[in-house]
Amino acid sequence: MSTAVIGLGLIGGSLLRALAAAGHDVVGYDADPETREAARAAGFRVAGTVPDAIRGAELTALAVPLTVLPDVIAEMAGHDGLVTDVTSVKGPVRDLMKGFRFVGGHPMAGKETSGFAASDPGLFEGCTWALCLEPHGTDLADWLLLAGLFTSIGARVVPVTAAEHDTAVAQISHVPHLFAAVLATQLLANPLAGTLAAGSFRDATRVAATRPELTAAMCGGNWSAVHRELSRVIGDLQQLEEDLLLSDPVSGLSTYLALGSRVRRAWPPPPGATVTVAADVQALLALGRAGGWVTSVNGTELLGMRPETDLYLS
Amino acid sequence: MSTAVIGLGLIGGSLLRALAAAGHDVVGYDADPETREAARAAGFRVAGTVPDAIRGAELTALAVPLTVLPDVIAEMAGHDGLVTDVTSVKGPVRDLMKGFRFVGGHPMAGKETSGFAASDPGLFEGCTWALCLEPHGTDLADWLLLAGLFTSIGARVVPVTAAEHDTAVAQISHVPHLFAAVLATQLLANPLAGTLAAGSFRDATRVAATRPELTAAMCGGNWSAVHRELSRVIGDLQQLEEDLLLSDPVSGLSTYLALGSRVRRAWPPPPGATVTVAADVQALLALGRAGGWVTSVNGTELLGMRPETDLYLS
Repeated sequence: MSTAVIGLGLIGGSLLRALAAAGHDVVGYDADPETREAARAAGFRVAGTVPDAIRGAELTALAVPLTVLPDVIAEMAGHDGLVTDVTSVKGPVRDLMKGFRFVGGHPMAGKETSGFAASDPGLFEGCTWALCLEPHGTDLADWLLLAGLFTSIGARVVPVTAAEHDTAVAQISHVPHLFAAVLATQLLANPLAGTLAAGSFRDATRVAATRPELTAAMCGGNWSAVHRELSRVIGDLQQLEEDLLLSDPVSGLSTYLALGSRVRRAWPPPPGATVTVAADVQALLALGRAGGWVTSVNGTELLGMRPETDLYLS
Repeated sequence: MSTAVIGLGLIGGSLLRALAAAGHDVVGYDADPETREAARAAGFRVAGTVPDAIRGAELTALAVPLTVLPDVIAEMAGHDGLVTDVTSVKGPVRDLMKGFRFVGGHPMAGKETSGFAASDPGLFEGCTWALCLEPHGTDLADWLLLAGLFTSIGARVVPVTAAEHDTAVAQISHVPHLFAAVLATQLLANPLAGTLAAGSFRDATRVAATRPELTAAMCGGNWSAVHRELSRVIGDLQQLEEDLLLSDPVSGLSTYLALGSRVRRAWPPPPGATVTVAADVQALLALGRAGGWVTSVNGTELLGMRPETDLYLS
């Protein structure tokens, strides 16, 4: 499939490499001339502008940060090919892409390093790739095409609505980043605590060291879901705060802590069994909600995996 | 120094081994007959009761869980030797030990494993050991004796009041355990989030897998400081919750996140310079508050380290 990749950082560069390695006809573009030169030197076809890159492309993958997306979209006016993206928030991007043939995506592929120099054709092997499927608004054939493409480069494609995605990433990434920042600031003007701090502090605050503008953009881009989920966990913390004042705080805390312990021990769940999945929006979303993913697409024949999540289901 | 170690789990067993290796006359005791037998089989002198173990001991180290401490103390009535402990909360233990010649301690030596079988004479090499020093209530000569003993087996002895210790461990360990539980329970009935979860969730929730009764006992034993510090961080989270509703949530969040990022990148601080410390309560507490520790005691000659904590001081 002829594909244009816009933005050649870690994710875009890796996608360019992975699709080329799988025999697809790819062209890249990056706003940075040095990055374009590096991609050319690595043997890739690189366009000088967004319109040049996407002209005639069956698929355009937007691999630029959320803040840059509106500028790129402005350069794509009238484009009628299929478009996907890789940003970490899906509702706001769906709104930005109104009028395009669009299926939003989010490969959960992180690395300590960034930029084209760090890109790797194997980055998506075993990588969870959320791929948005709306009961009203996504063309199932387009979704299946992308699911087939991403599974072919090794990804586990998770069918999910934009709203479900944004709630889940608020819970498992954005709120944890805010928690980490709050725990880290406790050391302000408190070197004694820093000296006593050990493994639990180290791990609980690791992501607080992320560049603050990245964390702010990530949480701010998903502000609605982050606000809702943050409010919910603050409610849980306030319950624990009350439990600490009980005459027997230990039993008060134990019930809640036992839930958390059970859930955490059950994560990540065992991969479970291979399942066949109907090429049907509701069947696919049900697989995603059960914690499952698609592993291969052959026309309308889909195979998937459904992990054993009973331990945190009830 | 003739020392009785009561409780031969990971910490007590390791202390027995470390003191014996350093040439001290040690005797152990554990409530569990199998543990006593294992210690005897490893070549240690083991008493059959608490009174037998502590009779004539210049030092008694209580290495039992907080919940068991009152029973052990009841068996020590009338004992006039120096006593220390290793529990993770210092104010409540100080109150329990009224009437004894007591200096509370807390070696921050964790390991994934527990029990006498996991004990290791090298456990305290480089280990931070909080040692309580109250402006009114601690005999400085007793404190210096213990500081000399623990530095001789490789520990970094941090002079600290019980209140300062309990606040610091609430911040760097107890509150992080509660945060981890709250983040983990988000997966309840939500397998999709579990499938999208990756590194930030894994690290932020690692300690949620701890046995819930241990976490509850730890937080419940320090309920007053944990309540105060939890209330403070809930206040910070509520400020972030408001920032998310600003017309520009990204700049709203950035200021706070920049603080957290700067503090986390500055931790752990570089070890800094060797300093000489006066054998004086206020000078020692000032070293602890600056994030420093004692590395050796030779009579009233003390050496210490004062790390470079400027980055999280202002």
